Amino acid sequence: MLYLRHCRSLARVCLYRTPRLLLQGPASSLPESAGAVCTRWQSSNGGQDGWGQRTKIPRWRHMGAGLLVGTGTVLAYGLYHRQVQQASATSKSIGSIEKPSDYPVYTQDEVARHRTLTDGVWVTFKGAVYDITDFVALHPGGDKILLAAGGALEPFWSLYAVHNQEHVLEILAEYKVGELCPEDLKKQMGSSCDPYAGDPARHPALRVNSLKPYNAEPPTEILSENYITPSAFFFKRNHLPVPKVDPKAYRLEIHGLPCGPVSLSLEDLKTKFPKHTVTATLQCAGNRRSEMNQVKVVKGLNWGIAAISNANWGGALLRDVLMHVGYRPGFPARHVQFEGLDVDPVGTSYGASIPLGKAVSEEGDVLLAYEMNGEDLPPDHGYPVRVVVPGTVGARNVKWLGKIILSEDESPSHWQQNDYKGFSPGTDWDTVDFKAAPAIQELPVQSAITQPQEGIVLDRGLGTVTVKGYAWSGGGREVVRVDVSVDGGQTWHVAKLRSGEEGDQSPPPGRAWAWKLWELNVPLPPDVHELVIICKAVDSSYNVQPDTVTPIWNLRGVLSNAWHRVRVRVKED
Amino acid sequence: MLYLRHCRSLARVCLYRTPRLLLQGPASSLPESAGAVCTRWQSSNGGQDGWGQRTKIPRWRHMGAGLLVGTGTVLAYGLYHRQVQQASATSKSIGSIEKPSDYPVYTQDEVARHRTLTDGVWVTFKGAVYDITDFVALHPGGDKILLAAGGALEPFWSLYAVHNQEHVLEILAEYKVGELCPEDLKKQMGSSCDPYAGDPARHPALRVNSLKPYNAEPPTEILSENYITPSAFFFKRNHLPVPKVDPKAYRLEIHGLPCGPVSLSLEDLKTKFPKHTVTATLQCAGNRRSEMNQVKVVKGLNWGIAAISNANWGGALLRDVLMHVGYRPGFPARHVQFEGLDVDPVGTSYGASIPLGKAVSEEGDVLLAYEMNGEDLPPDHGYPVRVVVPGTVGARNVKWLGKIILSEDESPSHWQQNDYKGFSPGTDWDTVDFKAAPAIQELPVQSAITQPQEGIVLDRGLGTVTVKGYAWSGGGREVVRVDVSVDGGQTWHVAKLRSGEEGDQSPPPGRAWAWKLWELNVPLPPDVHELVIICKAVDSSYNVQPDTVTPIWNLRGVLSNAWHRVRVRVKED
Repeated sequence: MLYLRHCRSLARVCLYRTPRLLLQGPASSLPESAGAVCTRWQSSNGGQDGWGQRTKIPRWRHMGAGLLVGTGTVLAYGLYHRQVQQASATSKSIGSIEKPSDYPVYTQDEVARHRTLTDGVWVTFKGAVYDITDFVALHPGGDKILLAAGGALEPFWSLYAVHNQEHVLEILAEYKVGELCPEDLKKQMGSSCDPYAGDPARHPALRVNSLKPYNAEPPTEILSENYITPSAFFFKRNHLPVPKVDPKAYRLEIHGLPCGPVSLSLEDLKTKFPKHTVTATLQCAGNRRSEMNQVKVVKGLNWGIAAISNANWGGALLRDVLMHVGYRPGFPARHVQFEGLDVDPVGTSYGASIPLGKAVSEEGDVLLAYEMNGEDLPPDHGYPVRVVVPGTVGARNVKWLGKIILSEDESPSHWQQNDYKGFSPGTDWDTVDFKAAPAIQELPVQSAITQPQEGIVLDRGLGTVTVKGYAWSGGGREVVRVDVSVDGGQTWHVAKLRSGEEGDQSPPPGRAWAWKLWELNVPLPPDVHELVIICKAVDSSYNVQPDTVTPIWNLRGVLSNAWHRVRVRVKED
Repeated sequence: MLYLRHCRSLARVCLYRTPRLLLQGPASSLPESAGAVCTRWQSSNGGQDGWGQRTKIPRWRHMGAGLLVGTGTVLAYGLYHRQVQQASATSKSIGSIEKPSDYPVYTQDEVARHRTLTDGVWVTFKGAVYDITDFVALHPGGDKILLAAGGALEPFWSLYAVHNQEHVLEILAEYKVGELCPEDLKKQMGSSCDPYAGDPARHPALRVNSLKPYNAEPPTEILSENYITPSAFFFKRNHLPVPKVDPKAYRLEIHGLPCGPVSLSLEDLKTKFPKHTVTATLQCAGNRRSEMNQVKVVKGLNWGIAAISNANWGGALLRDVLMHVGYRPGFPARHVQFEGLDVDPVGTSYGASIPLGKAVSEEGDVLLAYEMNGEDLPPDHGYPVRVVVPGTVGARNVKWLGKIILSEDESPSHWQQNDYKGFSPGTDWDTVDFKAAPAIQELPVQSAITQPQEGIVLDRGLGTVTVKGYAWSGGGREVVRVDVSVDGGQTWHVAKLRSGEEGDQSPPPGRAWAWKLWELNVPLPPDVHELVIICKAVDSSYNVQPDTVTPIWNLRGVLSNAWHRVRVRVKED
């Protein structure tokens, strides 16, 4: 705890101590070699599992890194390209300023002998060697840093772009102890291996929160113009590179059954089970995190109001599949774990779990989906098979599904255990105990205004303002009302709700998986030059959104569902 | 609509026009006859169904009255006895002041010929005859008033004590057209028939919101001192007189099945089905209504924070019973209706319904309960059999259960259709459309502070303040955190939660039916003479309580779950 505090203090100091001296030239003057550094991951040890340490590394060592998938990207938001370039420049400059010439030279084999706290923990980065033994306890991402011991940092840092910041490189520079011998550096630089090089093309209209991993949301007006969000504009939330999966070779493994593991092909899923379709809204736990950042900075991607979208999903019911492979009521399991085929450099998959009851409920509608909006799943949304858990936070809707495990325990993954949980506004990184909070499953009631947008100017001559937005709640609870105010909450009007195209009949109780779009025409109040427009939704359990953000602020910036407020101006004729 | 507005204006005017002149003597000087007036209900036509009009009266006529069970009792709170006495005095006085002697005399038969708007609507009250034809459209309780046409008002008014107010008697006086002949008056006065005369004795510690029907809540400190609320202190919420049910003659009828109605005895319920026990918290939809009244007066009983209690319930699972009598999945019904044996003068039962899915779910835990805290149900809690619908608003937990009906439709009862629904703060009695809102089933997340109590003085020498309370959420959503502030919401502390005596293990997801008690010792902030203590709870769906009351205010004062605030003073040593 003390160490972590120390580390954060260090990071804070570094943030303010801008290393101007270290930036000696424009980005264009960088050497070519700066961009090609991580052969070991993909070539020298044979692919994604190349670090070869998977079985020896205790699981707790994995827990820090995933946090960093989101951590700090607030700071990195929008700066990615510039930072990568700055990073190279900075790294090179640090050496030349502080210790220009007299570092010892080490081989990769020598570096590789330092992989424990006892032997020392050495790493390489862009041709320099660092002894980071003393830093391990200070690493904000925890012991995950030990995964890189004895080898190159680049494959990790290219996965977790949060490291591409000046203060991180400044900290690293303090630990430099040598140079990598030119032959081994050349080997590292032998081929380009950006793990994100295979990611699919995306629509340029998306607002990118993070390029690697790719995280982006649609323009808000697209949300309320389309009850079904077109797949290209459906928000993207990736934790790792998009895996390339050959549909013919695809196998879904199911473990934890009394009869032993079962393996199903894509064809099996499509032909052995009835195709079930569900219209379901998915929402990221971090949707509207930017509003929490305005209260006090949190860790995570700086999502606006559009980390939520609605689609038609088609696939096999998880319940049907589990029954087919031998599951029966009473089977001693409490959770269904999912593992994705998206993996980090040591082969750890993205993972999550849901309660067994949800998975096998006749009313749960949990899908092993292979279709989105009537077509094959797009690569960004889990091709060829993903889980769709209606009513449940996006993080449990595991994409590129590779494995299902029936278990007494929740998923051991970082994202289930040490992320995607809610805490009191009084809890900080010094006091947080991730075991004290349940993993987010169902999300609370939510709504937001998509039109008009913040800051626009309305013409008084129009007489009215049209307010539009979306509303949704977790757990299949139907949104039953949206209240709109154009006077900062003094008076309220009831908006008109719109369900799917096919009609406005209510879904069965507890199975309202899809959002409602809403709109309302409200007269412009006289003699007012600024309007504070607010929306708040009510769901079928009559839960409501809280009035303000501050009392629900939490250190990870999740569950941001206070009333949504938009300020606009009114121009007189 | 216009009529109703008119009527409400009238009532408002009357409230301010205090009829001092009409109160001519102390209560003790009233004539004996004032308390004995409604023979017709219980004697002349043979019991509770004595008005004999049940089959002819369209159901919409019933809808107004139930509203009045709660309506206006805010005003009547605590005044019941005095008002009954005043009413007698007032009624007598009105005649003598306005038209001292020259009213025509009518027989009961003559009065009984005026039972429609065409023939005129006449009623009697304490020996006077009134032609209320023109008032029917103005009656706040709607056409329910026609039930009394041609007969005495007393049986209705003794059920709905809201009428025992001066302004009501003033309005009635305007319609006086005659006197009832002495012989018929004598018949009416022949025997006492207070329908509440058979109600059980209650503990004097209870805080009474309404005597007839009986509605009362325990002192708040009792709540947090007992994880299981002793039955005597469990809040009482009756809509009608407590029926006397002979357990040997008791039959539960089940309708709507393909094989025709089924009838079960109490013995059947106890012996043919396994006894299932559930610890479940029940909460009235109107709990904490008094806080809404502080914003703007609403209709309903002025509950404090204790219209909520927790008990062990034992009985047969509704699911088991329905399966036993032939229900099978796929059966074409969507709701399960319940009818109580508590009835109004024309035999209309208290009624409610729940969605079929909840009733038959293996995880729903819906009971036909015959035990409360290990003993037979007390009379106030539904002896011999009641429904316990864990996670669902108290109003659906029908007591003195007489009939179950599987149906495509919700219960047609007033309490399902035109009461116990939530509306926008912008909706008033002129604009409300009860069809526009769903009947409350699951309740939103709730918590309140039971200790310290409002206004007490803390001794600074103690150094800390102990804050205690309860927290609960509907739909089986477990309370996962309670935040407490002693500085008006600036900073928050996490309270220690306490589950049942038997251990603190979490219930299965979605089956957390019982509340959690919580407490916390917080240091007294220095240099502060008043503390605003606040609690707010979070449930497993991460729904939270709203910050303030005003934006969730609604015309019926239900669903009052804003942060609970208590102000206390700190005395220096």
